Amino acid sequence: MLSFEEFTKFCVNITEFIAGKLSEQRDDLTICYKNDGTEVTPLDFLIEDELRNCIASTFPEHGILGEERSPHNPEAKFKWILDPIDGTLGFTKGVPLYGTLIGLTEQNEPKYGFLRLPMITNCWISGNGSVALLNGKPLEVKQHLSWQKSLVLTTDQQTIEASVIGKFWEKAISLGATGRTWGDCFGYYMLCRGEAELMADTGLKPYDIIPLVPILLGAGIELHQFGNSDYSNILACKPGVIEQLR
Amino acid sequence: MLSFEEFTKFCVNITEFIAGKLSEQRDDLTICYKNDGTEVTPLDFLIEDELRNCIASTFPEHGILGEERSPHNPEAKFKWILDPIDGTLGFTKGVPLYGTLIGLTEQNEPKYGFLRLPMITNCWISGNGSVALLNGKPLEVKQHLSWQKSLVLTTDQQTIEASVIGKFWEKAISLGATGRTWGDCFGYYMLCRGEAELMADTGLKPYDIIPLVPILLGAGIELHQFGNSDYSNILACKPGVIEQLR
Repeated sequence: MLSFEEFTKFCVNITEFIAGKLSEQRDDLTICYKNDGTEVTPLDFLIEDELRNCIASTFPEHGILGEERSPHNPEAKFKWILDPIDGTLGFTKGVPLYGTLIGLTEQNEPKYGFLRLPMITNCWISGNGSVALLNGKPLEVKQHLSWQKSLVLTTDQQTIEASVIGKFWEKAISLGATGRTWGDCFGYYMLCRGEAELMADTGLKPYDIIPLVPILLGAGIELHQFGNSDYSNILACKPGVIEQLR
Repeated sequence: MLSFEEFTKFCVNITEFIAGKLSEQRDDLTICYKNDGTEVTPLDFLIEDELRNCIASTFPEHGILGEERSPHNPEAKFKWILDPIDGTLGFTKGVPLYGTLIGLTEQNEPKYGFLRLPMITNCWISGNGSVALLNGKPLEVKQHLSWQKSLVLTTDQQTIEASVIGKFWEKAISLGATGRTWGDCFGYYMLCRGEAELMADTGLKPYDIIPLVPILLGAGIELHQFGNSDYSNILACKPGVIEQLR
Protein backbone atom coordinates (compact mmCIF):
# COMPACT_ATOMS: atom_id res chain seq x y z
CA MET A 1 0.00 0.00 0.00
CA LEU A 2 1.15 3.51 -0.93
CA SER A 3 2.01 5.66 2.11
CA PHE A 4 0.25 9.02 2.55
CA GLU A 5 3.59 10.74 1.99
CA GLU A 6 4.13 8.87 -1.29
CA PHE A 7 0.55 9.61 -2.40
CA THR A 8 0.95 13.34 -1.66
CA LYS A 9 4.28 13.59 -3.46
CA PHE A 10 2.94 11.69 -6.47
CA CYS A 11 -0.14 13.96 -6.70
CA VAL A 12 1.89 17.17 -6.28
CA ASN A 13 4.11 16.05 -9.18
CA ILE A 14 1.42 14.91 -11.59
CA THR A 15 -0.72 18.04 -11.07
CA GLU A 16 2.12 20.58 -11.27
CA PHE A 17 1.43 21.19 -15.00
CA ILE A 18 -2.23 22.02 -14.51
CA ALA A 19 -2.07 25.75 -13.72
CA GLY A 20 -0.12 26.56 -16.87
CA LYS A 21 -2.38 24.41 -19.01
CA LEU A 22 -5.51 26.07 -17.67
CA SER A 23 -4.32 29.64 -17.98
CA GLU A 24 -2.70 29.38 -21.40
CA GLN A 25 -5.71 27.80 -23.07
CA ARG A 26 -8.44 29.88 -21.46
CA ASP A 27 -8.96 32.25 -24.37
CA ASP A 28 -10.36 29.98 -27.05
CA LEU A 29 -12.39 27.51 -25.10
CA THR A 30 -14.81 25.11 -26.75
CA ILE A 31 -17.68 24.31 -24.38
CA CYS A 32 -19.72 21.13 -24.85
CA TYR A 33 -22.68 19.88 -22.86
CA LYS A 34 -22.98 16.37 -21.50
CA ASN A 35 -26.21 14.37 -21.39
CA ASP A 36 -26.99 15.68 -17.89
CA GLY A 37 -26.69 19.27 -19.13
CA THR A 38 -23.40 20.02 -17.38
CA GLU A 39 -20.47 21.62 -19.19
CA VAL A 40 -17.33 19.93 -20.36
CA THR A 41 -14.34 21.28 -22.28
CA PRO A 42 -11.43 19.74 -24.21
CA LEU A 43 -9.26 20.62 -21.20
CA ASP A 44 -11.27 18.33 -18.92
CA PHE A 45 -10.36 15.44 -21.24
CA LEU A 46 -6.75 16.55 -21.68
CA ILE A 47 -6.13 16.82 -17.92
CA GLU A 48 -7.90 13.56 -17.11
CA ASP A 49 -5.94 11.73 -19.83
CA GLU A 50 -2.64 13.06 -18.53
CA LEU A 51 -3.49 12.03 -14.97
CA ARG A 52 -4.68 8.59 -16.14
CA ASN A 53 -1.46 7.99 -18.06
CA CYS A 54 0.68 8.88 -15.04
CA ILE A 55 -1.36 6.65 -12.73
CA ALA A 56 -1.63 3.69 -15.10
CA SER A 57 2.09 3.64 -15.83
CA THR A 58 3.06 3.90 -12.14
CA PHE A 59 0.34 1.67 -10.66
CA PRO A 60 -0.69 -0.70 -13.45
CA GLU A 61 -2.73 -2.94 -11.13
CA HIS A 62 -4.89 -0.08 -9.73
CA GLY A 63 -8.33 0.92 -11.02
CA ILE A 64 -9.28 4.41 -12.24
CA LEU A 65 -12.67 6.11 -12.09
CA GLY A 66 -12.62 9.51 -13.81
CA GLU A 67 -15.40 11.95 -14.54
CA GLU A 68 -14.85 12.12 -18.29
CA ARG A 69 -13.72 8.62 -19.41
CA SER A 70 -14.88 5.01 -18.91
CA PRO A 71 -13.82 3.22 -15.70
CA HIS A 72 -10.56 1.28 -15.85
CA ASN A 73 -10.19 -1.94 -13.84
CA PRO A 74 -13.19 -1.05 -11.62
CA GLU A 75 -12.91 -4.18 -9.43
CA ALA A 76 -9.38 -3.38 -8.27
CA LYS A 77 -8.65 -3.17 -4.52
CA PHE A 78 -7.10 0.29 -4.94
CA LYS A 79 -8.93 2.77 -7.17
CA TRP A 80 -8.11 6.35 -8.16
CA ILE A 81 -10.99 8.81 -8.42
CA LEU A 82 -10.40 11.81 -10.72
CA ASP A 83 -12.18 15.07 -11.39
CA PRO A 84 -9.96 16.99 -13.84
CA ILE A 85 -11.86 20.28 -13.44
CA ASP A 86 -14.26 20.53 -10.50
CA GLY A 87 -16.28 23.71 -10.92
CA THR A 88 -16.46 23.54 -14.72
CA LEU A 89 -19.29 26.09 -14.94
CA GLY A 90 -17.07 28.66 -13.24
CA PHE A 91 -14.07 27.59 -15.31
CA THR A 92 -15.92 28.12 -18.60
CA LYS A 93 -17.03 31.57 -17.41
CA GLY A 94 -13.59 32.67 -16.22
CA VAL A 95 -14.30 32.38 -12.49
CA PRO A 96 -11.05 31.28 -10.82
CA LEU A 97 -12.57 29.01 -8.16
CA TYR A 98 -12.11 25.62 -9.87
CA GLY A 99 -9.75 22.81 -9.00
CA THR A 100 -8.50 19.31 -9.76
CA LEU A 101 -9.45 16.44 -7.46
CA ILE A 102 -7.65 13.13 -7.01
CA GLY A 103 -8.73 10.46 -4.55
CA LEU A 104 -7.48 6.97 -3.74
CA THR A 105 -9.88 4.37 -2.34
CA GLU A 106 -9.16 0.98 -0.78
CA GLN A 107 -12.01 -1.54 -1.11
CA ASN A 108 -14.15 1.46 -2.19
CA GLU A 109 -13.46 3.36 1.05
CA PRO A 110 -11.92 6.87 0.69
CA LYS A 111 -8.31 6.56 1.89
CA TYR A 112 -6.33 9.57 0.63
CA GLY A 113 -7.45 12.76 -1.12
CA PHE A 114 -5.77 15.60 -3.02
CA LEU A 115 -7.02 18.98 -4.24
CA ARG A 116 -5.05 21.35 -6.47
CA LEU A 117 -6.31 24.92 -6.94
CA PRO A 118 -4.53 26.24 -10.05
CA MET A 119 -5.79 29.83 -9.70
CA ILE A 120 -5.14 30.12 -5.96
CA THR A 121 -1.33 30.18 -6.32
CA ASN A 122 -1.60 26.59 -7.63
CA CYS A 123 -1.73 25.52 -3.97
CA TRP A 124 -2.76 22.05 -2.86
CA ILE A 125 -4.34 20.25 0.08
CA SER A 126 -3.97 16.55 0.77
CA GLY A 127 -5.52 14.45 3.49
CA ASN A 128 -5.66 10.92 4.89
CA GLY A 129 -8.63 11.17 7.27
CA SER A 130 -6.38 12.04 10.25
CA VAL A 131 -4.38 14.94 8.89
CA ALA A 132 -4.77 17.55 6.13
CA LEU A 133 -1.79 19.40 4.64
CA LEU A 134 -1.93 22.78 2.88
CA ASN A 135 1.26 23.00 0.81
CA GLY A 136 2.75 20.52 3.25
CA LYS A 137 1.72 22.27 6.48
CA PRO A 138 -0.93 20.70 8.72
CA LEU A 139 -4.32 22.41 8.81
CA GLU A 140 -6.54 22.37 11.83
CA VAL A 141 -9.94 23.98 11.82
CA LYS A 142 -10.77 26.01 14.91
CA GLN A 143 -13.95 25.60 16.92
CA HIS A 144 -17.07 27.42 15.70
CA LEU A 145 -17.51 30.50 17.89
CA SER A 146 -20.29 32.69 16.58
CA TRP A 147 -22.67 33.05 13.63
CA GLN A 148 -22.07 36.78 13.35
CA LYS A 149 -19.38 37.52 10.72
CA SER A 150 -19.44 33.87 9.72
CA LEU A 151 -19.77 32.42 6.26
CA VAL A 152 -21.83 29.49 4.99
CA LEU A 153 -21.25 28.14 1.51
CA THR A 154 -22.92 26.05 -1.13
CA THR A 155 -22.56 25.44 -4.84
CA ASP A 156 -26.13 26.34 -5.79
CA GLN A 157 -28.38 28.08 -3.30
CA GLN A 158 -31.64 27.29 -5.14
CA THR A 159 -30.89 23.56 -5.15
CA ILE A 160 -29.88 23.56 -1.50
CA GLU A 161 -32.96 25.48 -0.37
CA ALA A 162 -35.21 22.94 -2.11
CA SER A 163 -33.37 19.95 -0.60
CA VAL A 164 -33.38 18.10 2.74
CA ILE A 165 -30.40 20.28 3.72
CA GLY A 166 -32.33 23.51 3.12
CA LYS A 167 -33.52 23.88 6.70
CA PHE A 168 -29.93 23.83 8.06
CA TRP A 169 -28.86 26.45 5.51
CA GLU A 170 -31.77 28.71 6.33
CA LYS A 171 -31.23 28.35 10.08
CA ALA A 172 -27.58 29.40 9.71
CA ILE A 173 -28.62 32.47 7.71
CA SER A 174 -31.33 33.32 10.26
CA LEU A 175 -28.67 33.15 13.00
CA GLY A 176 -26.63 35.81 11.22
CA ALA A 177 -24.35 33.95 8.81
CA THR A 178 -23.63 35.31 5.33
CA GLY A 179 -24.38 32.85 2.52
CA ARG A 180 -22.29 32.66 -0.63
CA THR A 181 -22.03 30.32 -3.64
CA TRP A 182 -18.24 30.16 -3.51
CA GLY A 183 -18.85 26.48 -4.01
CA ASP A 184 -17.58 23.31 -5.63
CA CYS A 185 -14.10 22.30 -4.40
CA PHE A 186 -13.30 25.93 -3.52
CA GLY A 187 -16.02 25.90 -0.85
CA TYR A 188 -14.44 22.86 0.81
CA TYR A 189 -11.03 24.53 0.59
CA MET A 190 -12.47 27.57 2.44
CA LEU A 191 -13.93 25.23 5.06
CA CYS A 192 -10.60 23.40 5.57
CA ARG A 193 -8.83 26.75 5.99
CA GLY A 194 -11.36 27.76 8.66
CA GLU A 195 -12.76 30.65 6.58
CA ALA A 196 -16.30 29.20 6.54
CA GLU A 197 -18.50 27.41 9.05
CA LEU A 198 -20.20 25.00 6.70
CA MET A 199 -20.50 23.86 3.13
CA ALA A 200 -23.78 22.28 1.97
CA ASP A 201 -24.02 20.25 -1.22
CA THR A 202 -26.45 17.89 -2.90
CA GLY A 203 -26.48 15.67 -5.97
CA LEU A 204 -22.76 14.99 -5.73
CA LYS A 205 -21.09 12.38 -7.92
CA PRO A 206 -18.21 10.27 -6.51
CA TYR A 207 -15.64 12.39 -8.43
CA ASP A 208 -16.90 15.56 -6.70
CA ILE A 209 -16.64 14.35 -3.15
CA ILE A 210 -14.72 11.08 -2.56
CA PRO A 211 -11.30 12.80 -2.97
CA LEU A 212 -12.41 15.47 -0.48
CA VAL A 213 -13.54 13.11 2.30
CA PRO A 214 -10.04 12.26 3.67
CA ILE A 215 -9.09 15.95 3.40
CA LEU A 216 -12.14 17.20 5.29
CA LEU A 217 -11.87 14.58 8.05
CA GLY A 218 -8.14 15.24 8.27
CA ALA A 219 -8.77 18.96 8.82
CA GLY A 220 -11.19 18.21 11.65
CA ILE A 221 -14.36 18.89 9.66
CA GLU A 222 -17.52 16.88 10.46
CA LEU A 223 -19.32 15.22 7.56
CA HIS A 224 -23.05 14.61 7.82
CA GLN A 225 -24.78 12.57 5.14
CA PHE A 226 -28.44 12.79 4.17
CA GLY A 227 -30.36 10.08 2.35
CA ASN A 228 -28.01 7.53 0.81
CA SER A 229 -24.71 7.01 2.60
CA ASP A 230 -22.69 7.59 -0.58
CA TYR A 231 -21.76 11.20 0.19
CA SER A 232 -24.18 12.49 -2.48
CA ASN A 233 -25.94 14.90 -0.08
CA ILE A 234 -23.74 16.32 2.62
CA LEU A 235 -23.31 19.02 5.16
CA ALA A 236 -19.64 19.51 5.95
CA CYS A 237 -19.11 21.75 8.97
CA LYS A 238 -16.93 22.78 11.87
CA PRO A 239 -17.36 20.61 15.00
CA GLY A 240 -20.49 21.40 16.99
CA VAL A 241 -22.15 23.40 14.22
CA ILE A 242 -24.89 20.96 13.25
CA GLU A 243 -26.28 20.82 16.81
CA GLN A 244 -26.99 24.55 16.60
CA LEU A 245 -28.88 24.14 13.34
CA ARG A 246 -31.25 21.31 14.24
CA MET B 1 -10.98 68.20 -19.19
CA LEU B 2 -9.02 64.95 -19.14
CA SER B 3 -9.57 62.83 -22.27
CA PHE B 4 -10.77 59.23 -21.86
CA GLU B 5 -7.43 58.04 -23.18
CA GLU B 6 -5.54 60.10 -20.61
CA PHE B 7 -7.84 58.89 -17.83
CA THR B 8 -7.33 55.24 -18.80
CA LYS B 9 -3.55 55.57 -19.04
CA PHE B 10 -3.40 57.38 -15.69
CA CYS B 11 -5.52 54.70 -13.97
CA VAL B 12 -3.54 51.82 -15.52
CA ASN B 13 -0.35 53.37 -14.17
CA ILE B 14 -1.52 54.21 -10.66
CA THR B 15 -3.11 50.77 -10.12
CA GLU B 16 -0.25 48.68 -11.53
CA PHE B 17 1.21 48.16 -8.04
CA ILE B 18 -1.98 46.76 -6.56
CA ALA B 19 -1.71 43.08 -7.48
CA GLY B 20 1.71 42.70 -5.86
CA LYS B 21 0.62 44.58 -2.76
CA LEU B 22 -2.48 42.43 -2.32
CA SER B 23 -0.78 39.08 -2.83
CA GLU B 24 2.35 39.73 -0.76
CA GLN B 25 0.46 40.92 2.31
CA ARG B 26 -2.39 38.38 2.28
CA ASP B 27 -0.92 36.09 4.94
CA ASP B 28 -1.00 38.26 8.04
CA LEU B 29 -4.11 40.31 7.55
CA THR B 30 -5.64 42.40 10.32
CA ILE B 31 -9.38 42.66 9.85
CA CYS B 32 -11.33 45.52 11.44
CA TYR B 33 -15.03 46.24 11.37
CA LYS B 34 -16.53 49.60 10.50
CA ASN B 35 -19.58 51.09 12.20
CA ASP B 36 -21.87 49.54 9.59
CA GLY B 37 -20.44 46.09 10.34
CA THR B 38 -18.51 45.75 7.08
CA GLU B 39 -14.86 44.68 7.00
CA VAL B 40 -11.87 46.89 6.41
CA THR B 41 -8.16 46.06 6.42
CA PRO B 42 -4.93 48.09 6.60
CA LEU B 43 -4.56 47.41 2.87
CA ASP B 44 -7.79 49.28 2.09
CA PHE B 45 -6.24 52.37 3.68
CA LEU B 46 -2.83 51.81 2.12
CA ILE B 47 -4.24 51.49 -1.41
CA GLU B 48 -6.63 54.42 -1.03
CA ASP B 49 -3.84 56.64 0.32
CA GLU B 50 -1.54 55.73 -2.56
CA LEU B 51 -4.28 56.48 -5.11
CA ARG B 52 -5.18 59.75 -3.34
CA ASN B 53 -1.57 60.89 -3.38
CA CYS B 54 -1.22 60.20 -7.11
CA ILE B 55 -4.48 62.00 -7.91
CA ALA B 56 -3.90 64.99 -5.64
CA SER B 57 -0.41 65.61 -6.97
CA THR B 58 -1.49 65.34 -10.63
CA PHE B 59 -4.87 67.10 -10.37
CA PRO B 60 -4.65 69.40 -7.33
CA GLU B 61 -7.89 71.21 -8.18
CA HIS B 62 -10.00 67.99 -8.33
CA GLY B 63 -12.06 66.56 -5.49
CA ILE B 64 -11.71 63.02 -4.09
CA LEU B 65 -14.38 60.84 -2.51
CA GLY B 66 -12.92 57.57 -1.21
CA GLU B 67 -14.50 54.78 0.80
CA GLU B 68 -12.04 54.86 3.69
CA ARG B 69 -11.05 58.54 4.18
CA SER B 70 -12.82 61.91 4.50
CA PRO B 71 -13.88 63.68 1.29
CA HIS B 72 -11.35 66.08 -0.21
CA ASN B 73 -12.59 69.22 -1.99
CA PRO B 74 -16.13 67.81 -2.35
CA GLU B 75 -17.52 70.86 -4.21
CA ALA B 76 -15.03 70.52 -7.10
CA LYS B 77 -16.36 70.26 -10.67
CA PHE B 78 -14.31 67.09 -11.26
CA LYS B 79 -14.31 64.46 -8.52
CA TRP B 80 -12.56 61.10 -8.23
CA ILE B 81 -14.48 58.24 -6.59
CA LEU B 82 -12.33 55.49 -5.07
CA ASP B 83 -12.98 52.03 -3.71
CA PRO B 84 -9.56 50.58 -2.86
CA ILE B 85 -10.87 47.01 -2.34
CA ASP B 86 -14.37 46.29 -3.61
CA GLY B 87 -15.38 42.87 -2.30
CA THR B 88 -13.56 43.18 1.03
CA LEU B 89 -15.44 40.25 2.60
CA GLY B 90 -14.09 37.97 -0.13
CA PHE B 91 -10.65 39.55 0.10
CA THR B 92 -10.39 38.89 3.84
CA LYS B 93 -11.42 35.27 3.27
CA GLY B 94 -9.00 34.64 0.41
CA VAL B 95 -11.60 34.66 -2.38
CA PRO B 96 -9.91 36.16 -5.47
CA LEU B 97 -12.92 38.06 -6.83
CA TYR B 98 -12.15 41.53 -5.49
CA GLY B 99 -11.04 44.63 -7.35
CA THR B 100 -10.12 48.30 -7.20
CA LEU B 101 -12.55 50.90 -8.54
CA ILE B 102 -11.78 54.43 -9.73
CA GLY B 103 -14.37 56.79 -11.17
CA LEU B 104 -14.27 60.38 -12.36
CA THR B 105 -17.40 62.53 -12.18
CA GLU B 106 -18.11 65.92 -13.77
CA GLN B 107 -20.70 68.00 -11.87
CA ASN B 108 -21.48 64.77 -9.95
CA GLU B 109 -22.32 62.86 -13.16
CA PRO B 110 -20.33 59.64 -13.80
CA LYS B 111 -17.99 60.41 -16.69
CA TYR B 112 -15.20 57.79 -16.77
CA GLY B 113 -14.73 54.55 -14.85
CA PHE B 114 -11.93 52.09 -14.22
CA LEU B 115 -11.83 48.61 -12.67
CA ARG B 116 -8.66 46.66 -11.90
CA LEU B 117 -8.92 42.97 -10.98
CA PRO B 118 -5.61 42.07 -9.33
CA MET B 119 -6.30 38.33 -9.10
CA ILE B 120 -7.68 37.97 -12.66
CA THR B 121 -4.29 38.47 -14.34
CA ASN B 122 -4.36 42.04 -12.95
CA CYS B 123 -6.56 42.91 -15.94
CA TRP B 124 -8.51 46.13 -16.19
CA ILE B 125 -11.65 47.57 -17.79
CA SER B 126 -12.25 51.24 -18.42
CA GLY B 127 -15.31 52.96 -19.84
CA ASN B 128 -16.67 56.38 -20.81
CA GLY B 129 -20.36 55.57 -21.30
CA SER B 130 -19.90 54.92 -25.05
CA VAL B 131 -17.09 52.41 -25.06
CA ALA B 132 -15.59 49.91 -22.60
CA LEU B 133 -12.04 48.58 -22.97
CA LEU B 134 -10.72 45.30 -21.54
CA ASN B 135 -6.94 45.63 -21.45
CA GLY B 136 -7.35 48.20 -24.22
CA LYS B 137 -9.63 46.17 -26.49
CA PRO B 138 -13.26 47.25 -26.95
CA LEU B 139 -15.90 45.05 -25.32
CA GLU B 140 -19.35 44.65 -26.72
CA VAL B 141 -21.94 42.54 -25.00
CA LYS B 142 -23.96 40.27 -27.27
CA GLN B 143 -27.75 40.13 -27.28
CA HIS B 144 -29.45 37.94 -24.70
CA LEU B 145 -30.54 34.74 -26.45
CA SER B 146 -31.85 32.21 -23.96
CA TRP B 147 -32.24 31.63 -20.23
CA GLN B 148 -31.03 28.06 -20.47
CA LYS B 149 -27.29 27.83 -19.68
CA SER B 150 -27.38 31.47 -18.65
CA LEU B 151 -26.04 33.01 -15.47
CA VAL B 152 -27.52 35.66 -13.18
CA LEU B 153 -25.41 37.22 -10.47
CA THR B 154 -25.73 39.16 -7.26
CA THR B 155 -23.57 39.97 -4.26
CA ASP B 156 -25.92 38.60 -1.61
CA GLN B 157 -28.86 36.43 -2.63
CA GLN B 158 -30.75 36.83 0.68
CA THR B 159 -30.65 40.61 0.46
CA ILE B 160 -31.75 40.62 -3.19
CA GLU B 161 -34.64 38.21 -2.62
CA ALA B 162 -35.99 40.46 0.15
CA SER B 163 -35.68 43.63 -1.98
CA VAL B 164 -37.70 45.30 -4.75
CA ILE B 165 -35.40 43.54 -7.23
CA GLY B 166 -36.23 40.10 -5.82
CA LYS B 167 -39.04 39.40 -8.30
CA PHE B 168 -36.75 39.92 -11.31
CA TRP B 169 -34.14 37.62 -9.82
CA GLU B 170 -36.68 34.91 -9.07
CA LYS B 171 -38.24 35.18 -12.52
CA ALA B 172 -34.84 34.71 -14.18
CA ILE B 173 -34.20 31.61 -12.05
CA SER B 174 -37.67 30.25 -12.85
CA LEU B 175 -36.91 30.70 -16.56
CA GLY B 176 -33.88 28.43 -16.23
CA ALA B 177 -30.99 30.70 -15.30
CA THR B 178 -28.37 29.62 -12.79
CA GLY B 179 -27.86 32.07 -9.89
CA ARG B 180 -24.48 32.70 -8.29
CA THR B 181 -23.03 35.18 -5.78
CA TRP B 182 -19.95 35.90 -7.86
CA GLY B 183 -20.75 39.47 -6.98
CA ASP B 184 -19.30 42.86 -6.13
CA CYS B 185 -17.18 44.30 -8.95
CA PHE B 186 -16.43 40.80 -10.26
CA GLY B 187 -20.12 40.30 -11.12
CA TYR B 188 -20.11 43.48 -13.23
CA TYR B 189 -16.89 42.32 -14.89
CA MET B 190 -18.62 39.04 -15.85
CA LEU B 191 -21.55 41.02 -17.21
CA CYS B 192 -19.31 43.28 -19.31
CA ARG B 193 -17.55 40.23 -20.73
CA GLY B 194 -20.90 38.75 -21.73
CA GLU B 195 -20.58 35.78 -19.34
CA ALA B 196 -23.73 36.69 -17.39
CA GLU B 197 -27.17 38.03 -18.30
CA LEU B 198 -27.72 40.25 -15.30
CA MET B 199 -26.25 41.49 -12.06
CA ALA B 200 -28.63 42.62 -9.30
CA ASP B 201 -27.46 44.73 -6.37
CA THR B 202 -28.98 46.78 -3.56
CA GLY B 203 -27.73 49.10 -0.86
CA LEU B 204 -24.82 50.31 -2.98
CA LYS B 205 -22.65 53.22 -1.88
CA PRO B 206 -21.31 55.67 -4.51
CA TYR B 207 -17.83 54.04 -4.31
CA ASP B 208 -19.32 50.64 -5.23
CA ILE B 209 -21.14 51.71 -8.35
CA ILE B 210 -20.34 55.19 -9.72
CA PRO B 211 -17.00 54.03 -11.23
CA LEU B 212 -18.83 51.12 -12.88
CA VAL B 213 -21.58 53.16 -14.57
CA PRO B 214 -19.50 54.46 -17.54
CA ILE B 215 -18.01 50.96 -17.95
CA LEU B 216 -21.37 49.19 -18.02
CA LEU B 217 -22.98 51.70 -20.38
CA GLY B 218 -19.87 51.59 -22.56
CA ALA B 219 -20.13 47.80 -22.84
CA GLY B 220 -23.76 48.07 -23.96
CA ILE B 221 -25.28 47.02 -20.64
CA GLU B 222 -28.64 48.50 -19.58
CA LEU B 223 -28.87 50.01 -16.10
CA HIS B 224 -32.23 50.05 -14.35
CA GLN B 225 -32.57 51.92 -11.07
CA PHE B 226 -35.10 51.22 -8.33
CA GLY B 227 -36.15 53.70 -5.67
CA ASN B 228 -33.75 56.64 -5.48
CA SER B 229 -32.00 57.56 -8.72
CA ASP B 230 -28.57 57.40 -7.09
CA TYR B 231 -27.67 53.93 -8.39
CA SER B 232 -28.08 52.45 -4.90
CA ASN B 233 -30.46 49.71 -6.12
CA ILE B 234 -29.84 48.49 -9.63
CA LEU B 235 -30.41 45.77 -12.13
CA ALA B 236 -27.66 45.79 -14.75
CA CYS B 237 -28.48 43.53 -17.67
CA LYS B 238 -28.03 42.70 -21.32
CA PRO B 239 -30.32 44.64 -23.67
CA GLY B 240 -33.89 43.31 -23.75
CA VAL B 241 -33.53 41.22 -20.62
CA ILE B 242 -35.68 43.27 -18.25
CA GLU B 243 -38.74 43.06 -20.54
CA GLN B 244 -38.67 39.28 -20.15
CA LEU B 245 -38.59 39.56 -16.36
CA ARG B 246 -41.46 41.97 -15.76
